Amino acid sequence: MTKLWDKGYRLDPAIEEFTVGEDHILDLNLIRADVFGSIAHAKMLSEIGVLTSAEFMKLKKCLLEILSAEKRGKFKINLEDEDVHTAVENFLTKKLGDLGKKIHTGRSRNDQVLVDIRIFTREKLLDIQMEVLNLARVLTRFAAHHRNIPMPGRTHTQRAMPSSVGLWASAFAESLMDDLEVLKIAYQLNNQCPLGSAASYGVPLPIDRQLVSDLLGFEKVQNNVLYANNSRGKIETIVVFSLLQVVEDLSKLSNDLIFFSIPEIGYFTLPKEYASGSSIMPQKQNPCVLELVRARSALVLSRLLQLVMIIRNLPSGYNRDFQETKKPLMESLETTEKCLKIIAKVFGHLGVNKDVLLNSFTPEIFAADKALKLAVEEGVPFRDAYKKVAKELSRLKSEDPVKNILSKKHVGAPGNLSLEKLIRKINLEMNSVRKEKARLQKVWASLQKL
Amino acid sequence: MTKLWDKGYRLDPAIEEFTVGEDHILDLNLIRADVFGSIAHAKMLSEIGVLTSAEFMKLKKCLLEILSAEKRGKFKINLEDEDVHTAVENFLTKKLGDLGKKIHTGRSRNDQVLVDIRIFTREKLLDIQMEVLNLARVLTRFAAHHRNIPMPGRTHTQRAMPSSVGLWASAFAESLMDDLEVLKIAYQLNNQCPLGSAASYGVPLPIDRQLVSDLLGFEKVQNNVLYANNSRGKIETIVVFSLLQVVEDLSKLSNDLIFFSIPEIGYFTLPKEYASGSSIMPQKQNPCVLELVRARSALVLSRLLQLVMIIRNLPSGYNRDFQETKKPLMESLETTEKCLKIIAKVFGHLGVNKDVLLNSFTPEIFAADKALKLAVEEGVPFRDAYKKVAKELSRLKSEDPVKNILSKKHVGAPGNLSLEKLIRKINLEMNSVRKEKARLQKVWASLQKL
Amino acid sequence: MTKLWDKGYRLDPAIEEFTVGEDHILDLNLIRADVFGSIAHAKMLSEIGVLTSAEFMKLKKCLLEILSAEKRGKFKINLEDEDVHTAVENFLTKKLGDLGKKIHTGRSRNDQVLVDIRIFTREKLLDIQMEVLNLARVLTRFAAHHRNIPMPGRTHTQRAMPSSVGLWASAFAESLMDDLEVLKIAYQLNNQCPLGSAASYGVPLPIDRQLVSDLLGFEKVQNNVLYANNSRGKIETIVVFSLLQVVEDLSKLSNDLIFFSIPEIGYFTLPKEYASGSSIMPQKQNPCVLELVRARSALVLSRLLQLVMIIRNLPSGYNRDFQETKKPLMESLETTEKCLKIIAKVFGHLGVNKDVLLNSFTPEIFAADKALKLAVEEGVPFRDAYKKVAKELSRLKSEDPVKNILSKKHVGAPGNLSLEKLIRKINLEMNSVRKEKARLQKVWASLQKL
Amino acid sequence: MTKLWDKGYRLDPAIEEFTVGEDHILDLNLIRADVFGSIAHAKMLSEIGVLTSAEFMKLKKCLLEILSAEKRGKFKINLEDEDVHTAVENFLTKKLGDLGKKIHTGRSRNDQVLVDIRIFTREKLLDIQMEVLNLARVLTRFAAHHRNIPMPGRTHTQRAMPSSVGLWASAFAESLMDDLEVLKIAYQLNNQCPLGSAASYGVPLPIDRQLVSDLLGFEKVQNNVLYANNSRGKIETIVVFSLLQVVEDLSKLSNDLIFFSIPEIGYFTLPKEYASGSSIMPQKQNPCVLELVRARSALVLSRLLQLVMIIRNLPSGYNRDFQETKKPLMESLETTEKCLKIIAKVFGHLGVNKDVLLNSFTPEIFAADKALKLAVEEGVPFRDAYKKVAKELSRLKSEDPVKNILSKKHVGAPGNLSLEKLIRKINLEMNSVRKEKARLQKVWASLQKL
Repeated sequence: MTKLWDKGYRLDPAIEEFTVGEDHILDLNLIRADVFGSIAHAKMLSEIGVLTSAEFMKLKKCLLEILSAEKRGKFKINLEDEDVHTAVENFLTKKLGDLGKKIHTGRSRNDQVLVDIRIFTREKLLDIQMEVLNLARVLTRFAAHHRNIPMPGRTHTQRAMPSSVGLWASAFAESLMDDLEVLKIAYQLNNQCPLGSAASYGVPLPIDRQLVSDLLGFEKVQNNVLYANNSRGKIETIVVFSLLQVVEDLSKLSNDLIFFSIPEIGYFTLPKEYASGSSIMPQKQNPCVLELVRARSALVLSRLLQLVMIIRNLPSGYNRDFQETKKPLMESLETTEKCLKIIAKVFGHLGVNKDVLLNSFTPEIFAADKALKLAVEEGVPFRDAYKKVAKELSRLKSEDPVKNILSKKHVGAPGNLSLEKLIRKINLEMNSVRKEKARLQKVWASLQKL
Repeated sequence: MTKLWDKGYRLDPAIEEFTVGEDHILDLNLIRADVFGSIAHAKMLSEIGVLTSAEFMKLKKCLLEILSAEKRGKFKINLEDEDVHTAVENFLTKKLGDLGKKIHTGRSRNDQVLVDIRIFTREKLLDIQMEVLNLARVLTRFAAHHRNIPMPGRTHTQRAMPSSVGLWASAFAESLMDDLEVLKIAYQLNNQCPLGSAASYGVPLPIDRQLVSDLLGFEKVQNNVLYANNSRGKIETIVVFSLLQVVEDLSKLSNDLIFFSIPEIGYFTLPKEYASGSSIMPQKQNPCVLELVRARSALVLSRLLQLVMIIRNLPSGYNRDFQETKKPLMESLETTEKCLKIIAKVFGHLGVNKDVLLNSFTPEIFAADKALKLAVEEGVPFRDAYKKVAKELSRLKSEDPVKNILSKKHVGAPGNLSLEKLIRKINLEMNSVRKEKARLQKVWASLQKL
Repeated sequence: MTKLWDKGYRLDPAIEEFTVGEDHILDLNLIRADVFGSIAHAKMLSEIGVLTSAEFMKLKKCLLEILSAEKRGKFKINLEDEDVHTAVENFLTKKLGDLGKKIHTGRSRNDQVLVDIRIFTREKLLDIQMEVLNLARVLTRFAAHHRNIPMPGRTHTQRAMPSSVGLWASAFAESLMDDLEVLKIAYQLNNQCPLGSAASYGVPLPIDRQLVSDLLGFEKVQNNVLYANNSRGKIETIVVFSLLQVVEDLSKLSNDLIFFSIPEIGYFTLPKEYASGSSIMPQKQNPCVLELVRARSALVLSRLLQLVMIIRNLPSGYNRDFQETKKPLMESLETTEKCLKIIAKVFGHLGVNKDVLLNSFTPEIFAADKALKLAVEEGVPFRDAYKKVAKELSRLKSEDPVKNILSKKHVGAPGNLSLEKLIRKINLEMNSVRKEKARLQKVWASLQKL
Repeated sequence: MTKLWDKGYRLDPAIEEFTVGEDHILDLNLIRADVFGSIAHAKMLSEIGVLTSAEFMKLKKCLLEILSAEKRGKFKINLEDEDVHTAVENFLTKKLGDLGKKIHTGRSRNDQVLVDIRIFTREKLLDIQMEVLNLARVLTRFAAHHRNIPMPGRTHTQRAMPSSVGLWASAFAESLMDDLEVLKIAYQLNNQCPLGSAASYGVPLPIDRQLVSDLLGFEKVQNNVLYANNSRGKIETIVVFSLLQVVEDLSKLSNDLIFFSIPEIGYFTLPKEYASGSSIMPQKQNPCVLELVRARSALVLSRLLQLVMIIRNLPSGYNRDFQETKKPLMESLETTEKCLKIIAKVFGHLGVNKDVLLNSFTPEIFAADKALKLAVEEGVPFRDAYKKVAKELSRLKSEDPVKNILSKKHVGAPGNLSLEKLIRKINLEMNSVRKEKARLQKVWASLQKL
């Protein structure tokens, strides 16, 4: 097999093994993107006269063969190919001879990997946005279902004031909706077409970057060719940070759940099909799935750091260091998607122990409300009412917690969660994601029909 | 002085010292915000009948005294006050007696610190957005001024292909414009009014959260009261991440500049008023300012990590851990703003050594262009042209680098940088920031006139 | 005031402000070290004939004046001095004229800051080692006092098997003893004398680096002069990592304590003088001190990262970036020491609720022990005994937990904690630290008497 | 296949897939360790009468079959086995029936994974220590070979003072020797036997933990059974930090080399067999191997952070989160070892361009030496000599750089590198590592002969 840069001598094998790394495995994720990018590039070359229409059609046909092989899991990237780009070009050359080599006119491997990763990330980010919205919906419905079930609200880990299962669950749904905004900006910044940057400095041909960008469904051309290259790793960092927001929410949610389902608290029950056993303690039902979500969220943060460390202070222009940005991105996307799906599954089967929740309301949970009532009703300053209640803590009587939470009617309080509005927003956003997915499918369909 | 939570006994002094931390110093940044938040809260209390109009007017007058003292640097926060919230309330109580205490009705210190930090951050983020735009403009103008000055483009730190000073400088301008998008989403997520969350679970009063939000110029109420609290540290993380994008750009730019101005390269010259000396080597002119920008960017990343670590897996609801999120946020904002200003200053005085740049063009820099030309002109595959050029490297002749860069006319290439479009975008964004700043000033003016 | 590198022109004031940073404040910690380093350097210069004995004596006298002023808090470092090194030299020059300037012969500011930080860190590390040992002793005594008080041992946050207060507390004591090993290696690596590196490349004088090292009580000269400089930040990283081990232990301990003292668990009680109140809930006694230890541990990790980021991939030789390593080191040392002291204080007053602990033993906590007994006594495989017990969980009878824990007699089990051995080890290590402290005091005394 | 904790119902398949993770792949690294740990545990059970001698011999024979299968790559861990521990036990049970199940008496999977990882890490750390020493030797020999070749020493990236190739290379050798100290403490802390902790709280059998520890060649028993478990992830953190020191050195070295071999500097030449080509620029010889070492060092830092994040603030006792600590440890060990080997290889073939180095000595490199000479010879203060030289910079004459570096004879200066002493130290340490390796081999041999 031929290297794209073959000059008639061979690298030392140890060096070759070290430098190739895992690209031949990771790049299995990029075959589709590489094919699409190549079709668009070839089409553009034919439009500016570097290829004839007939040449383009031949190349396209051959590229679609790869696509079809990929679907059946039959397109292989060998270690000697180094990466998907060489594997694709070698395939073309084997089939088409010199014409296969011509497709590399006016582009560099940097170009290809840049555009492949953007295309790959674009699709993954839409999937993840959909999973975020799905979980937000699951949580909101859970909140709606349990909106009148009281739950002690905690501060400093201790019982503090009346709250509700609905308030707790929808707090996370709202958090995910804020995460969605970060995911959307990551999507937007990723959705710029870098093709045409070549080795970071453009090419001496009148290439039509706008055309390629349109054919691939990008929102715009990433203008400055050096910036297109310098942004490698940077866009990935923004993407992974947006994922971090999601997994940190999932981790906090898992941590809450682990705590709320220990026997001493007992608010929730994880069904036994969701809890692993212990090899030594027969009575244990361990919330392993939640503990692993908590632990795996650390993967995303560490990959964020890894990305920043890799690109930090690299000289402008391409550096081989960029190769190492691929895996942390892919791992983060995969981990986030898996954690989202499993938590949605958990919430579909979570038991809510209403009696335990009701019984957990000790009188002092109502102390702050009492003090405030006293203050307002008797017109004394809150501070003084507070001191009065503090002195008489032991004489506090319990209230009806359901009545209490339903009586709090201001915006966002347990008695006024605005869940319908939230569901409407989730649906609206789901439609946007679906629309964008449909748009991309059209883009790929058109590309194959060129 | 009285603690807001005073119950008739004292903390152990060592514990007190440990827990208070640096709030009494950091909170000097929050006095204005605390006053504004208090006016809005008091107004709302008067609207729902908890305070009379006359009581509100008295409180407002007194709060405006604090504002005026703050302007003159005369409002103090004592160690015994713990924080700005207690300092303000103690001031009110001293002046107004019981009425001063009444302002705490229906809010918690959590509420106050949450809203104060949002207000503080909002203003800082606008300042920083303006500085980002200013630097983008400085860089774009620098690029425009030197757009026809060639510069060897590098890959792997080595000279690779023809580039230009314009391409290099505007690559950073475009990067900053992408950063601006992240800063804007951080601004948007920060611009939600948390007031009314109280101890995380709302209050048993018909408070009007929308009114308070409107009075303080927030875009919307942060709905779920538990989420309002849970988002502490989370919003800060997003803000600091947006700053990280900026300082990492500045660091990369500084690193490039340090390298480009060593005598062996010599493309740029830092004026001697900008370079520190050595205590032992009389000949040295050290780019300390750039090295410090590079080093200080690490502060922002470390604070980002600190924030994530602090809030990670905290139980839902308020925890004292949140106190520690204040300083990393403030430090990051301050460091970013300073670095932006100093780099803009450096670019105002940077010497560009045209002759050195021209002389640095060795023939092989044109090799890739040659190979491509050969490929297109003779219709041979690029791979073969590449191999041909590779074999005859030593016979390559130099070209006119200016002609070369100007001949590359596709979008984003050295001969087509679209700087005018970039400047137009910068101006547009500057207008948006100015408009938002003006809007906030009107908000504050109206608040004082209530 | 004169800069050490003054060449007759001034830096731009904005640049000056930016570059000086906070050295004039941080360096207040380094005055003593700078004086000692200067005495040793001057002595050495007199030994190799660069200074006369009389000149040395004059310099020493003057340096001791600084020392004495420092003790009274009277030695100032002005912003214009930039740092302690210039402040000291300016003082000498003011007093001694040309002789004052002569002390800089054969050393650079790099040298001085390197040696000052090593000396400062050395003393701080000994203090911290002593605090670690003190806390280990407090915990071991606590463990000894409560060695027969049973406590449910947990896995997955849930009650799992019988444990004891003694096992729990001494687990942390042993962890701290492992931390001590890391602290000791950090001490050892820090205890190398860098003086003589100058600008990283040595000096053209027959300086006696061994003499200076001995005078300052270092274990050895850090040989290679370039490595002496390159190790700046690196040694700091190792030191801060050793601190990280400690604060992460304290954070885990605090997290356990917060959980174990919520009313639903109630194993321990924090005395009210150690718990802060809430501004809105009169009943709350919040474990703020523990939450802040937990949160502040994040400072140390973030500073570790900051240090690595600052020095990572710096070119060999001095770079100004190093300046930024000072503050993260100092902050980490201070935070660790404070957290250690406060936790030792907390344990001195922690209430242990024996009845609650005893009552928390539900029958299934004994299930694993039952299964194992069954397996051994009846000679069936553990797996089968396990399944049998698992099926009959509801019929399990409770045992006497005290008897249970005391019956576990193998090494390290609740019934055999080896606390006496641990105390002996702690005492031994304390003696080592005290001996090293005494050695350093002798070093400083001898230096002043030279 | 049977789960170790099988209780008669199945986990939901999605949960099962999520929780198992990659253990069945990662654990291929642990088969040997698990077999050794099992033999030692079984032997101990036979000593305390839980197994008969005959039973032990049968178990041992069967375990040695696994060992032999593993050597031939024939021992498989199926996804359904979850991990190596279950795979081994299932193998034993299949072969030996009930006896196979008996081996789990008195231990938990936690125990097994803890001990397996310690054994695995112990061997890897010795390999890495040897590679560190090997690279230190390669660098020292390189330094010795080029000790008289001058090289401009740099500060702030700029030429500053005379240095030598020898000083530069041996600076890294000395740095690695300091890293070795950190590696050694990591080895020591890892070399504690955790077996007997079971589910973190010990077992109700008179197990002989000291015997097991001795059989497995550990330095000591890790006493407190809860600490044995709590230290999971903690020991790994210390190990990975020790690796971080190494890879950060390698990264800095690579960064230096990349810079020193760009054509404008040209001090060193990477042989073409070690440099990758460009797919678009025929003239390029890219230092990809060095760039990848630089980038991969970021993996180790990110895994360190990941480990700290995973274990941070976990409740005492086993938590499933620990599972996620395995991969970051293994990845870090592998990456470090590979980077060490490749850099040693690079140095074996690095070209040193003596003429370029000599020609790079411009007169001002001698300025500091001049000023110092002036100061000492004419008895004027260094500051004044400095100012005089600063004023006459342009009239400076060049010196013979070889003479200059050889004239600097103080400890650690270019003319006195103490390389022989360094080599002696390296050899000494190599012998220690070899001795420890031999000791472990003896341990394994004895174990198999029990």
